[in-house]
Amino acid sequence: MNFTLNILGTASALPTSDRYSSAHVLDVHGRLFLIDCGEGTQMQMRRKGISFLKVDTVCLSHIHGDHIFGIFGLLSTMGMLGRTSVLNVFAPPAFRPVLDFFLNTFGEGLRFSIDMHELSCEAPEVVFQTRTIEVLSFPLRHRIETYGFIVREKEPPFNVRKDCIGKYGLSLSEIGALKRGEDVVRSSGGTTEVIPVSEAAYKPYVPRSYAYCSDTAPFPELAGWVRGVDMLYHEATYPAEMKDMAVKTFHSTTEDAAECALKAGAGRLLIGHYSSRFTDLSPFLEQAASIFPDTLLAHELDTIEIPLKKTEIW
Amino acid sequence: MNFTLNILGTASALPTSDRYSSAHVLDVHGRLFLIDCGEGTQMQMRRKGISFLKVDTVCLSHIHGDHIFGIFGLLSTMGMLGRTSVLNVFAPPAFRPVLDFFLNTFGEGLRFSIDMHELSCEAPEVVFQTRTIEVLSFPLRHRIETYGFIVREKEPPFNVRKDCIGKYGLSLSEIGALKRGEDVVRSSGGTTEVIPVSEAAYKPYVPRSYAYCSDTAPFPELAGWVRGVDMLYHEATYPAEMKDMAVKTFHSTTEDAAECALKAGAGRLLIGHYSSRFTDLSPFLEQAASIFPDTLLAHELDTIEIPLKKTEIW
Repeated sequence: MNFTLNILGTASALPTSDRYSSAHVLDVHGRLFLIDCGEGTQMQMRRKGISFLKVDTVCLSHIHGDHIFGIFGLLSTMGMLGRTSVLNVFAPPAFRPVLDFFLNTFGEGLRFSIDMHELSCEAPEVVFQTRTIEVLSFPLRHRIETYGFIVREKEPPFNVRKDCIGKYGLSLSEIGALKRGEDVVRSSGGTTEVIPVSEAAYKPYVPRSYAYCSDTAPFPELAGWVRGVDMLYHEATYPAEMKDMAVKTFHSTTEDAAECALKAGAGRLLIGHYSSRFTDLSPFLEQAASIFPDTLLAHELDTIEIPLKKTEIW
Repeated sequence: MNFTLNILGTASALPTSDRYSSAHVLDVHGRLFLIDCGEGTQMQMRRKGISFLKVDTVCLSHIHGDHIFGIFGLLSTMGMLGRTSVLNVFAPPAFRPVLDFFLNTFGEGLRFSIDMHELSCEAPEVVFQTRTIEVLSFPLRHRIETYGFIVREKEPPFNVRKDCIGKYGLSLSEIGALKRGEDVVRSSGGTTEVIPVSEAAYKPYVPRSYAYCSDTAPFPELAGWVRGVDMLYHEATYPAEMKDMAVKTFHSTTEDAAECALKAGAGRLLIGHYSSRFTDLSPFLEQAASIFPDTLLAHELDTIEIPLKKTEIW
């Protein structure tokens, strides 16, 4: 039941000798979500030992080169490694001709299909789900059409307390009701017995969540959209003193990111997408942490676990 | 008067965690030639401290992804760094729609023009020259249209020996003749005096040359086309025992590369484009060196100087 974020790239538009372009791989229960795919993503995946074939969902925020120029090499490599399973790609509509160009020019011999889903929403909406996981997209505010993503565990079904099964002699249909979160109601001879779900069942864990917000200018709705996520990744291209530049380029500062985390009540804030002007990132951390103490700097090849939040069996 | 090869990538189709896709930067007299541009080239250039703006000529051998997928990021970065000077690109005609796609989709704001020259030849021909350098292309034998390149110093003009100027009282026009390689002939009163160029002038250096042959199956003409180069880069995707695979994929083995170097009378042989199957490259070196002893293995970020070959003033 892992929920593990792998950071592959933290650069903004210009990569440096030690910062790669944007890419995160989130591993939820062994299912890999690649979020953005800047140049060099496939090499960083190799360095982290991440299987190309286990990635079945790619989320692309926008078609600026530093977020997508690794996709050509990655798709080619998946093909050469013999991938046959479908790859889901969630991206703005503008990525469609990019993908078509790739397939027409370089796609010969690929034996897997790519199912591209064009993002289009004005507020968070579910774009992908499995039995236990869901992905939402929501619009960001950048120079071109851009989307953020939330990947989260779904609310798990109730587990029935083993001791209650014997104690109440629960039938299969009663156990089913409890799993669905319904109280058990027994009527017999004019009397009614209620076995409340709160006594006989429990949630095995609290769903975990991760939000990805890059690239964006700050805007009022965002904090509400990512409210309560365990890990908020929010770009912080510039330090606070470069607010003018951030406004001009539709990016965020350290303070913008931290204020969003604070308003959202996020568990932790992870910042990245650093301007190549800066080699020392300690001011980025200081500025953000002065507003939102639980801030982390993203670094290439970092792994961040979000531990399972097991509930107590009361 | 440097002639310096920088190796940026040595992988074949699949990059590994420590091998990048194909790219060489040759620095001849301070002019930078980028030869192939696999994914990650711009990051490798940063690591080597190679200026993006000093590259004015890009030679692309063919449009397989591992030789060109770094060009999008590199061109974008050149644009963001404010490049205004024209960039020459020499590539097979199939690269034209790739470039057009890039410019149409990602080229907004680029303030430099790209002068693409479509390669088309059946034997070596000069495709680019300056006063002191020339670049030749020649066809290779691969699964798609592919070209190799020779970059070499031109034959320098003669220098006139200073002691001869006084000794013979050479006039300006006589000095000009000697520089062109002509003997000085003085006729006066029925007598003729000859001052031979071999006595009064000398070549300041012997031209240096580098050939790039990737990707290719071996073929008989190639050794003749790269005859006498100081440094022959020849792909060696496979060890000798994988000859069948090399034939099938239109690649070369270590022995193919070494035999080409031997027949060509190359100064040194540099091999690369290693199959990702192999982490230990010592068998590659042993096999090639058993045929052509002066063989080098290409490694990421290696720098290889070809020293100036000054002639003795006799």
